Amino acid sequence: MTPSEKAEKIAKTLMFKHDAFSHWLGIEILHVGPGSCTVRSEVRYEMMNGFNICHGGITFSIADSAFAFASNSHGIHAVSIETSISHTKSVHTGDIITATAVEKNLTTKLGIYEVIVTNQHEAIVAIFKGTVFRTGKEWDIDSGIHL
Amino acid sequence: MTPSEKAEKIAKTLMFKHDAFSHWLGIEILHVGPGSCTVRSEVRYEMMNGFNICHGGITFSIADSAFAFASNSHGIHAVSIETSISHTKSVHTGDIITATAVEKNLTTKLGIYEVIVTNQHEAIVAIFKGTVFRTGKEWDIDSGIHL
Amino acid sequence: MTPSEKAEKIAKTLMFKHDAFSHWLGIEILHVGPGSCTVRSEVRYEMMNGFNICHGGITFSIADSAFAFASNSHGIHAVSIETSISHTKSVHTGDIITATAVEKNLTTKLGIYEVIVTNQHEAIVAIFKGTVFRTGKEWDIDSGIHL
Amino acid sequence: MTPSEKAEKIAKTLMFKHDAFSHWLGIEILHVGPGSCTVRSEVRYEMMNGFNICHGGITFSIADSAFAFASNSHGIHAVSIETSISHTKSVHTGDIITATAVEKNLTTKLGIYEVIVTNQHEAIVAIFKGTVFRTGKEWDIDSGIHL
Repeated sequence: MTPSEKAEKIAKTLMFKHDAFSHWLGIEILHVGPGSCTVRSEVRYEMMNGFNICHGGITFSIADSAFAFASNSHGIHAVSIETSISHTKSVHTGDIITATAVEKNLTTKLGIYEVIVTNQHEAIVAIFKGTVFRTGKEWDIDSGIHL
Repeated sequence: MTPSEKAEKIAKTLMFKHDAFSHWLGIEILHVGPGSCTVRSEVRYEMMNGFNICHGGITFSIADSAFAFASNSHGIHAVSIETSISHTKSVHTGDIITATAVEKNLTTKLGIYEVIVTNQHEAIVAIFKGTVFRTGKEWDIDSGIHL
Repeated sequence: MTPSEKAEKIAKTLMFKHDAFSHWLGIEILHVGPGSCTVRSEVRYEMMNGFNICHGGITFSIADSAFAFASNSHGIHAVSIETSISHTKSVHTGDIITATAVEKNLTTKLGIYEVIVTNQHEAIVAIFKGTVFRTGKEWDIDSGIHL
Repeated sequence: MTPSEKAEKIAKTLMFKHDAFSHWLGIEILHVGPGSCTVRSEVRYEMMNGFNICHGGITFSIADSAFAFASNSHGIHAVSIETSISHTKSVHTGDIITATAVEKNLTTKLGIYEVIVTNQHEAIVAIFKGTVFRTGKEWDIDSGIHL
């Protein structure tokens, strides 16, 4: 199994398949590889806040899912320690948003990722940064048992 | 109208009533006052991630709503610039989580808030920090028109 | 040796004594205990930036030292993973600033601290948040050897 | 005056020349342009902490200076709102570190920058993210008066 196949298997079969909230978010995994992931989602009315723009928690959540898939892609369980997000542009019902996670640094214990979130016009709507602790526990790829 | 009544009116009538995603999250506003807010929510199965624990975006979103109500409470529109969250303990289906926002600093243009998120055993599950830009636009309290 | 004596010994004898930059910063340790620390420093001309106000790196550094002393106080080596700071008020030459670190959460592997930085008028000048990774290595308190 | 010349004039003549702490840090400006800046500095013994590695405040400060030069480069005063740093690798006496600031997002009121800090072996030692508030006040480029 290549590193890319391993990343796909973990993200799609072991993680996303069992991830109820990512499904509610309408997430589709466009790409996942070693240390990287791109997901896409369409924003719905029920994701709006009291300003009638997309709730900050929605863009955070979509970025957080991309971050989780990217950081677990190497085969070691990765747990979020600290994440931050800057919302740079309003998101509206019907917008298609894409979140792309890239690995900025990786050590045995820690990983740092940036996730750029854009809309259908390729404008940046949020910038996310996340750090994971890598527990050392391996994903059981062969069994297909996800936990 | 006292500052407390004003905070309640903005959060409950002008913001929360029109906030579709906070309703989906099952948020109940326990308290809102000038610069502070406490909300509560019960965690449901559809909020789980691929590890079968609560998706980080859920606790973020609940904290973010408390942050929004607290930072808009003074009567001036407040827009999130930058937020960060540390997840310190796993959250499970059926947990009751409470998010309490307090104001750490306030100037004409900026406000900084901390939100502590706890579970039903009063254990801290997340620590959130948020900064808003205060646009100068006033909430139109009298008209009851929310935007 | 009580937990307080242990915290003092680590911070003062094993860490601060060998900490060249904290000395350059003019740091004085006012208090250190299990999970907490207060330091004080006077701001000098050579700490100014191009706006003729205190360089953001100075308040960060003073807060970071208080964070290091507080997070190592339990006897286990603690290494900074991620820190953030919001500068809320300008600091000038001659100001006396105090940084107080408190522990917000502690697990076997991780610790989260808040450091509030104030000036001589007790106005908040910066709010700092830091996360450490606890390596598991113990401070060698008996030998007095600091590394 | 081209945008590049303007960026150079502000950073070098109006800011850096009067920036006492950046001089103490041994900072040399290698490049500054609209929204970007690269600085370099050699780490000295007096920058060490109690672990005999470079104090986290030093790498923060060097990154913060690059961030300040990049964010003021457009001719409008930019004030730091919130900054964060992850230290990814130890820095030692004699190391030559380079901090490169790039603009990730810019609006009338706000700017977001990433600063990557590397050592002489091109290994990443720190990842910095910063947000500025743009006050609207213009730098007085013609007069040469820096404040």
